[in-house]
Amino acid sequence: MAIKVGIPKGTRDHLPVAMRRREQVLAAIRRVYERHGFEPLETPAIENIETLSGKYGEEGDQLLFRILKRGAKAATGECDLGLRYDLTVPLARVVAMHQNELPKVFKRYQMQPVWRADRPGHGRFREFYQCDIDIVGAAEPVPEIDMLSAVAELFGELGFSAIALRLNDRRVLRGLIERAGVPAQRESQAIVAIDKLDKIGEDGVRRELLARGFVESVADALLELLRTASAGDVLLALDGVFAGMPDALAGVANLRKIVRGLEQMELGATRLVVDPCLARGLDYYTGAIFEVQSEDLAGSLAGGGRYDKLIGMFSGRELPACGVSLGLERILVVMQERGMFDTGEHACDAMLAYFSEDTLGASLRCCARLRHHGLRVDLYPCADKLGKQFAHANQMNIPYVVLIGPEEAEAGVVKLKDMRSGEQLQLDMDALLERLGAMTTHDGAS
Amino acid sequence: MAIKVGIPKGTRDHLPVAMRRREQVLAAIRRVYERHGFEPLETPAIENIETLSGKYGEEGDQLLFRILKRGAKAATGECDLGLRYDLTVPLARVVAMHQNELPKVFKRYQMQPVWRADRPGHGRFREFYQCDIDIVGAAEPVPEIDMLSAVAELFGELGFSAIALRLNDRRVLRGLIERAGVPAQRESQAIVAIDKLDKIGEDGVRRELLARGFVESVADALLELLRTASAGDVLLALDGVFAGMPDALAGVANLRKIVRGLEQMELGATRLVVDPCLARGLDYYTGAIFEVQSEDLAGSLAGGGRYDKLIGMFSGRELPACGVSLGLERILVVMQERGMFDTGEHACDAMLAYFSEDTLGASLRCCARLRHHGLRVDLYPCADKLGKQFAHANQMNIPYVVLIGPEEAEAGVVKLKDMRSGEQLQLDMDALLERLGAMTTHDGAS
Repeated sequence: MAIKVGIPKGTRDHLPVAMRRREQVLAAIRRVYERHGFEPLETPAIENIETLSGKYGEEGDQLLFRILKRGAKAATGECDLGLRYDLTVPLARVVAMHQNELPKVFKRYQMQPVWRADRPGHGRFREFYQCDIDIVGAAEPVPEIDMLSAVAELFGELGFSAIALRLNDRRVLRGLIERAGVPAQRESQAIVAIDKLDKIGEDGVRRELLARGFVESVADALLELLRTASAGDVLLALDGVFAGMPDALAGVANLRKIVRGLEQMELGATRLVVDPCLARGLDYYTGAIFEVQSEDLAGSLAGGGRYDKLIGMFSGRELPACGVSLGLERILVVMQERGMFDTGEHACDAMLAYFSEDTLGASLRCCARLRHHGLRVDLYPCADKLGKQFAHANQMNIPYVVLIGPEEAEAGVVKLKDMRSGEQLQLDMDALLERLGAMTTHDGAS
Repeated sequence: MAIKVGIPKGTRDHLPVAMRRREQVLAAIRRVYERHGFEPLETPAIENIETLSGKYGEEGDQLLFRILKRGAKAATGECDLGLRYDLTVPLARVVAMHQNELPKVFKRYQMQPVWRADRPGHGRFREFYQCDIDIVGAAEPVPEIDMLSAVAELFGELGFSAIALRLNDRRVLRGLIERAGVPAQRESQAIVAIDKLDKIGEDGVRRELLARGFVESVADALLELLRTASAGDVLLALDGVFAGMPDALAGVANLRKIVRGLEQMELGATRLVVDPCLARGLDYYTGAIFEVQSEDLAGSLAGGGRYDKLIGMFSGRELPACGVSLGLERILVVMQERGMFDTGEHACDAMLAYFSEDTLGASLRCCARLRHHGLRVDLYPCADKLGKQFAHANQMNIPYVVLIGPEEAEAGVVKLKDMRSGEQLQLDMDALLERLGAMTTHDGAS
């Protein structure tokens, strides 16, 4: 009797075809980020529960996967560990714990799964990869320029053609809210409403503000300001709006430097958009915030910003930092839907068919030889009918099958079947290597 | 006030230098396994608790990390999920759940962490990577030959020079135990004792057998048989011992085929050792079993075997399978201790120093240009003193620093400092690219 099998809600197995696509994208991310001087970091999947608790708001706490104590203490139902919820809090913990081993300016990338007990939905999972870059230990604006140029280059390398970088600064957002007459302690309430502007429109945000208890005059003033600030030369308009507000003006100056810096860095088709309505939900941002969008696609592919206070919560001394997080699962879905992956991909260059136990030795020698030349070669492992073996090669999208029967073994040759054309040739080893496009020549002539 | 920071017992952060070594080994494993026709698979870190429970023996059940139910059910202290304990049970679940999507012969590799609440110790962790290959859907002996040749090639590629593959077959072991007069139902007790032979010696095994209630005559007969079987031509000796025992003889014939097959496959310096005392703990092996050892090192670097009944527990129909699991953490420790990693490695080819806001634009342009040519370039992000910036480059093992002051910016040149020699040169962009060994030429001449 078989055990009932299932997989946890919101999780997936990544079978080989999907895995190769994931690997392809992860390799591109790694390549671009390393070219930009970011170094790899990995942290454990499990963290002490006190490291995670209270860092992601009330909702985040609900979504943590908690791990029961082991041994006799399990009976108490107490938890001491939780699964990683993002890559930013672990980074802050790493910086606090390894201060003396890390360089003063620490540029790291991290590509690992995180877990959230969210309601699963289309393209939303309970286990998903995040790919983050962060620069710790340096103030604005150069880290922002460096990171955004890396992200723009990455999307170009992945094959996205119409990418927009939307930029804003928390001080700009706060300035607009203050100017509209919102008291400081209600600022984050207003940010939550503004954050929905591109989803629910001006009317929706107005209703949301009123529902959150803002008076009509404040709501209208805020929307009017957002409208003013978004028209024409945005940075110039903001300078006008913020006369006499030094913090907000510092935000505008920062955005201006980031824009000018990025203009030096050959971003190709990437469009820069300063958007004073961009809010991003997370409480911990203190300066620039940004999102990466594909122009013909709702929602964002990446996002991030500066958070100069978060690491101090762990290390006891404030350390400036900023970061960008890529939504790998969404990027994969979009690339898949748009046919951006090579469909001709095959895992193997050739397959050695199994003819009989008598010729197995010759097949094994041939197989080893091809692999020594860098070819990816599958070895069919049992005495199935040849038709079945060819069907396997077709299913696996393997372009060539090599067959060694008694006559071939005797003569020191092989039969090569081209699975696309059906053509069948008799070749010696050198001709076979040439035909299969062997990449390297580890050993001498046959 | 800083939050108390810590990391769960038995887990580690992998900082950049360690990460690069892990990546280097994982890349070699991926490369060799793909050359042998294995395809990548990943499964979730979490599994339903009923998938994991009862699969790893009583001790294994104690070592599972269990995850509390979410929401209101958390208060009950009940668990519905657990962390992955190995990669074999998830594979069996995948094969059962995706029978129609997978090829009849499924060769997969999987490199992911597993979690065991074991007592941490030197080189023993609660989160560690396993790197498994398995071939599902084919009977002995070709999969064994294919896998072992891949493993031998891998250790060669990693730089191990004296590797021994120890081989045995469960039917041989069972035959020896039966011949010594051990009743079938006490077989696994005897296997547990024999498994310790290389650690505690013959006397130790004898004591262990007596302690487990075997009579002296049986213990002595068993040790005598193991001694006979291990001397001279082992396979020939075993044929003699097993006259009239068809199952045991099938085991010997299987080992003979595996040895002959491997001899065809150019294993280089790898030594094959048939060892009738090799037991390996796991209950589920049914045929060949093997371990990979470095000849001057106690313990094994990899191990595996054939388990033709396990997948049937999940899929309801028996499917032959065999696999090898690498101990990545141990391999890394050994390579580290033996100085098998390149110590001259550097994350970046060059660093752009920060001179002033006035020359930032020129520095950004230069930085982008170098990266477009495939160079890995760090950008120092703030106006620290140059001495501090040079110290950073030294700490990061970056061989060159590029500096653009007002005069260089004006003249369209750069200063290049060789951090090893201290030599400083003034160069134009083309000369800089040439000097840094730019790999590609994405854009035209300057």
